[in-house]
Formats: sequence, structure tokens, C-alpha cells
Amino acid sequence: MHAEQRQRTNELLKQRGIHQALFAKPDSVKWLTGFAPPTQMGPNFFASGNPLLWYEDGHYTLIVSSAQESFAESFKGEPDGQVVTYLGYTIEQPIGTGKHLVEAFEKTVRTREKIGIENEYVSGLIAERFWMHDVTAVDGWLEPLRMVKTDEELAKLRRNFALTDVGYAAARKAVAVGQREIDVWNALHTAIQAAAGCRVPVGNDCVMGRRQQNIGGWPGDYELAEHDSLVVDLSVVLDGYWSDSCTTYYAGEPMERQVKMHRTAAEALEYGISLLRPGAVAKDIDQKVRQFIADAGYPVYPHHTGHGVGVSGHEAPRIVPYNDEVLEAGMVIMLEPGIYFPGETSVRLEDAVLILSDGVELLTHHDKRI
Amino acid sequence: MHAEQRQRTNELLKQRGIHQALFAKPDSVKWLTGFAPPTQMGPNFFASGNPLLWYEDGHYTLIVSSAQESFAESFKGEPDGQVVTYLGYTIEQPIGTGKHLVEAFEKTVRTREKIGIENEYVSGLIAERFWMHDVTAVDGWLEPLRMVKTDEELAKLRRNFALTDVGYAAARKAVAVGQREIDVWNALHTAIQAAAGCRVPVGNDCVMGRRQQNIGGWPGDYELAEHDSLVVDLSVVLDGYWSDSCTTYYAGEPMERQVKMHRTAAEALEYGISLLRPGAVAKDIDQKVRQFIADAGYPVYPHHTGHGVGVSGHEAPRIVPYNDEVLEAGMVIMLEPGIYFPGETSVRLEDAVLILSDGVELLTHHDKRI
Repeated sequence: MHAEQRQRTNELLKQRGIHQALFAKPDSVKWLTGFAPPTQMGPNFFASGNPLLWYEDGHYTLIVSSAQESFAESFKGEPDGQVVTYLGYTIEQPIGTGKHLVEAFEKTVRTREKIGIENEYVSGLIAERFWMHDVTAVDGWLEPLRMVKTDEELAKLRRNFALTDVGYAAARKAVAVGQREIDVWNALHTAIQAAAGCRVPVGNDCVMGRRQQNIGGWPGDYELAEHDSLVVDLSVVLDGYWSDSCTTYYAGEPMERQVKMHRTAAEALEYGISLLRPGAVAKDIDQKVRQFIADAGYPVYPHHTGHGVGVSGHEAPRIVPYNDEVLEAGMVIMLEPGIYFPGETSVRLEDAVLILSDGVELLTHHDKRI
Repeated sequence: MHAEQRQRTNELLKQRGIHQALFAKPDSVKWLTGFAPPTQMGPNFFASGNPLLWYEDGHYTLIVSSAQESFAESFKGEPDGQVVTYLGYTIEQPIGTGKHLVEAFEKTVRTREKIGIENEYVSGLIAERFWMHDVTAVDGWLEPLRMVKTDEELAKLRRNFALTDVGYAAARKAVAVGQREIDVWNALHTAIQAAAGCRVPVGNDCVMGRRQQNIGGWPGDYELAEHDSLVVDLSVVLDGYWSDSCTTYYAGEPMERQVKMHRTAAEALEYGISLLRPGAVAKDIDQKVRQFIADAGYPVYPHHTGHGVGVSGHEAPRIVPYNDEVLEAGMVIMLEPGIYFPGETSVRLEDAVLILSDGVELLTHHDKRI
């Protein structure tokens, strides 16, 4: 699993003269190995910290607690990989003292020279073992490598986008005057899990337009009234990969003003999609879609125009004002123009677009009509 | 918020001659400040790493990304505390490079002497700033202080235990031949969120007795058949505090064998509760409840007999074979004896018990009858 990711990384590290490296950022470990323990309740208190991945001249050793060993199954048969576990949950002695991790680390790692470390995520307990060495911080090095998706990744992303589509179908039915934000959320989350046949972590927003913070936020007990808009922005996380998407519903009849806003958002999204192609520059797309909204006479949204998606919900290439990264075939780009009048109403529409050498393919198929 | 927690910590650090300390474990920061951003989808990719809490002679500085600043509101007015934020989400430059965190840290922290550090959770990026100092690892120092709950904490715990009770009432109704584990889960999660009026992360287990791993696990698409047992073990996390609890349901009519197992588990739980009092030793309770199950002719469960609960779902005092910690009034103890025949059937029952100076109070009120 994820052999192509490791191949790309090998090439980069060789180019830069790094013979050994320690990857400690969970996203990096996930991308390099496919190791993706569920995180719906926050960190696992039976595991002692994040998984670590030790690189040595093209060979990868995944170091995980026995409490998370079952999630490393798919990496076990890899010719360039091995899994080392240390004691996690036990009733015979205290859990998670770090002692077992350090022991496993010391048995596994023989430091030589030119060592790269993801310094923002490695713990002090491990970092101190490298103080006397020639260390290079490699934080952020993998992000550009992650932009173009592999076929393996696209399969996971397609499945996850399909699950958010299921959620939208349920949300559309559930939106009605008298329903609360949380009721709509329950309907869509239930539909997603019923379709998947398992628990599925779902984010991001389910907020009605009358909220002061009507750009994003978790669903609360606000009750929908006639003419309320409801921005529903969904990601699911399965097998460590995120999806994303957004649309906006209306309780009862939308007002004329909302119909116009919705139409403009739809046109802005369509316009943005028309700009996506190999060779396009991220900040140009950002600027053009913002200008489209401004030209229509609306305040310009304060957030990104879009972003990549993969092992995290927001990653390179960001479609933002400063970014001069160039799009390539194989990237998956989220575009999400919105129009917000805080405390009054709001709209946001979002699609996922796979860039092809000769066009684009939509990965989201949810009904975004008013 | 959480002033009593800081008072206890001040005393400990003074006793041990620590003038400055860096708390980096999320549980520690949460317990010391009440800072509890939601974690349902894993780490926030708009924040640069975990929050940090800098201690200096009884004064606490919470260092968080602007993306998480809103969750620090309750700590802002504290006389012994302040909040320092660094740039998180922005569209004007890259997110989460760690640069902003380091800048905020260097502005805030003036290292002197006798510094304590939670070394297992601080990142290498921050840890390297202390390499030349007289540093003591304080990992685990707060765990014993967390055992006795404050009134503030008990209020949060009571609310969370009541929410799991709501989940059990819904689960009991949903269990039936032909329903899948995930269908029962959807019913109970929906009920909990509808009652709370907001999203509520829910763990832990929803597994039928015929599963080979019938001790624990997430709900899947297994369909309940006549005589199946279903172990439902629920925690919710709200305001950073966990609840916990468990019971077992049966699809259709339970078999005679299951009725006997269920009765024994109920008696073992009742017996365990009768042993809880100030002065009791954790490992003695563990040993006695295990013996009770063995005496009834059943295999003894392979997990803990119980544990504490608070800012994490499993904490001191652990009710396990090695632990000679002594119970005190104000502790909240989970007890959870079970009987498992892998691939056949299983039962587990669990209650939360607040230890009082002159007795106990049950904090869970779910119906655990067969």
C-alpha cells in the first residue's frame, strides 16, 4: 500500500542528501504507509503518542503501540517496510509512560548521518536522542509530493465523496421549518453511516444564515424558520482520507434575494471549475473567482477559494491569494465560493474537481440546486 | 475555571522545587485550564500542533493558535492566567509552519532555572529551546492530582453520564432481530445529540456476541439474529470531559445460558460497588471481582476491572492487578466486569461510582436489566 508515495519520497530525500529520516506528523505517516487508526474521539489513550516512521535509504519502519497494531496490517507485507510495536494497553503495568516507545525506538534506530526529522511533531522524548547529530528539519517536505493523487488514493476519495453525496440527499429531505440544525445533522450522519455500514466521522458545518457566524460552525439547537438558509459543508474521513463539499438549503420558500445569491454562487463555482486545468496558477484562480463575486455586487468571502484534499481536509495546493503553485493533472481541487451577510443569510456551494490532462472530472455529485 | 486544579499543581511543583514548567499533553492543559477544543475529526489542521501551557511560579500562560482561540474564552478572565495566541488559519501565507508558534513562545517564555517539561508531548521544535537548561521531565506528575474530582468537574461528569443514559434508552428500543450494529448505533447517537442540542462525540463499543472480538469494537454491518447479545459501551465527550458505562442487550429471547451470565455479571458489578470506599486498595478490588467471576465458573475477563474517568476516558486510579493506589472520597470509579465466550456470546455491565466519605453515589442510571 502507498508504494508510489514512498517512491516519490525516496527520490526527494536522495536528491537532498538525506539518508535517514524520522516522520512524526500523523498525516505524513498515513500518506507514506496507509496507516490510519480512527481518530473520532481524539487521541487513543492506550497508545503512547503518535506513530513514528523511520526512513533509512528507502526502507521504512513503522513504530506503533500494540493498541494500534491492528491498523498496521496493510503495511505488514510491504517489501520496503516493517512494523515494530511496543507495549500499549496492559493491565500488568502502567500504560503510556513512553518507556516502551523509547525502548522500541532504540532497538530499531541506528543513527548514522544526514538525518531528517519532522521536528514540529516528534516528541521531546524522541527528539532528544538526536541532539548530537547532523539533523535537518524536513517539516513540510512531503506536502508538495502529496498534491498529485495516486490511483489508490483516488479510489478512497471517490468512495468518500459518494458518502457525502448520500448525506446531502438526506439533509435535503430533513430541512424544514421547525427543524433544528442538529436534527438535520442527525439525519445526514445516520444516512451516511447506514450506507457505509460502519461508523463514519463527519465534519464540518451545519449553520443557518441568521447566525452571526454564518460562514461555518457545528450544528446547534437553532430552529429553522421560514426563509432561513442552511449551509451544510460535509467531510467524511474513512481509511484516513477526507472528502469535502458544500451546499445550501432553504427552510420554506427562499426569498428573491436568496435566489439571486444562490444563482451567483453557482455561477462563480461553475466559472471557477472552468479555470481548472494543468498549468493554471492557484492564485490566479483565487483572484478571478473573488472578482466574479465582487462584480456581481456582493461582499467577497473572507476564506480561501479552494484547496487540495487527501490525508487531510485542507492541503496543497491552496487556492489563495499568495499561492503561485501550478496545477497538474491528478490533483483534486475543492472550490467553494460563498456569499455571507452575517446575522441575515448566507450561501456556499462546493465541488471536488479532479484535474485531467485534457479536462476535469467532478468527484462530487450532490444536488446543489436551490 | 479549574482554579482548584492549578492550586494543587502549584503545591506539587513548589514541593518539588520546580519554578517553571511547560505542559504539553492535551489532557494536562485541559485539566489545568478547561481549554477543550472539539476533537471529533482528529487534529485541527488550521492549528499548529497542540496547545501549550507555560507555568511560572503559580502563573499560567496558555499558548494557542488563533484557530482555537475561541475555545480559550473561559480561561481569559482568570487572575492567575493569560492567553497568548499565534497566527493559525490565514489566506495570506502558509498555515501551520510552526514559525508563528515559535515566535509566540519566544516572546512569552523567559527561561530561568529548574524547568519541568512534559517531554512525551512537547514537540521537538519547542523542546530544542530547552537543551541547555536544567530540565526535569514532569510527564505523569498531574495524573495523581487528577484523581479526586472538583465540584466543577463533577457537574460536567454528571451531565455527560446523563447523556449516555439517554443513549441507552434509545439503544434498548432499537435492538431487534434484523437490525445491524450500526443501526443501533445510529439510534443511540441520534438520541444523544437530539437531547444535547449539539454534536456529541460518542465512543466506544457496539459489538454482538457472535463476533470473534466480542469484548469491544466499533459497530459494523453485522445483522442481529435471534439470541444474539449486543455489548453497548458508551462514552460521550463534552467540554473535554468523558463519561463511560456499559450494558448488554439481547435480540429476541435470551438463552438460559445468557440469562445466567447476565445475572452473574450484575452480581459481580454489585459486589464490586460494595467494595468501593475511602481506604480501599485498587488491586484488592480488582482481585476480588475477578475471583467472583471465577467462583461462578466463568473465564475471567482479560481487561481491567475498572478505572478513573475525567479529562480522559481511562485514567488513575486503574482498578488492575498491580495498582496499590488507595481510594479517596471524590474519586469517580468505573467498574465493568464482563464474561466473554469469543465467537459465541458475551456480557459486560458497567457503572460509574462517586466515592463519598460515608458511602457511594451512582452517577450512571441506565437500565441494565436483561
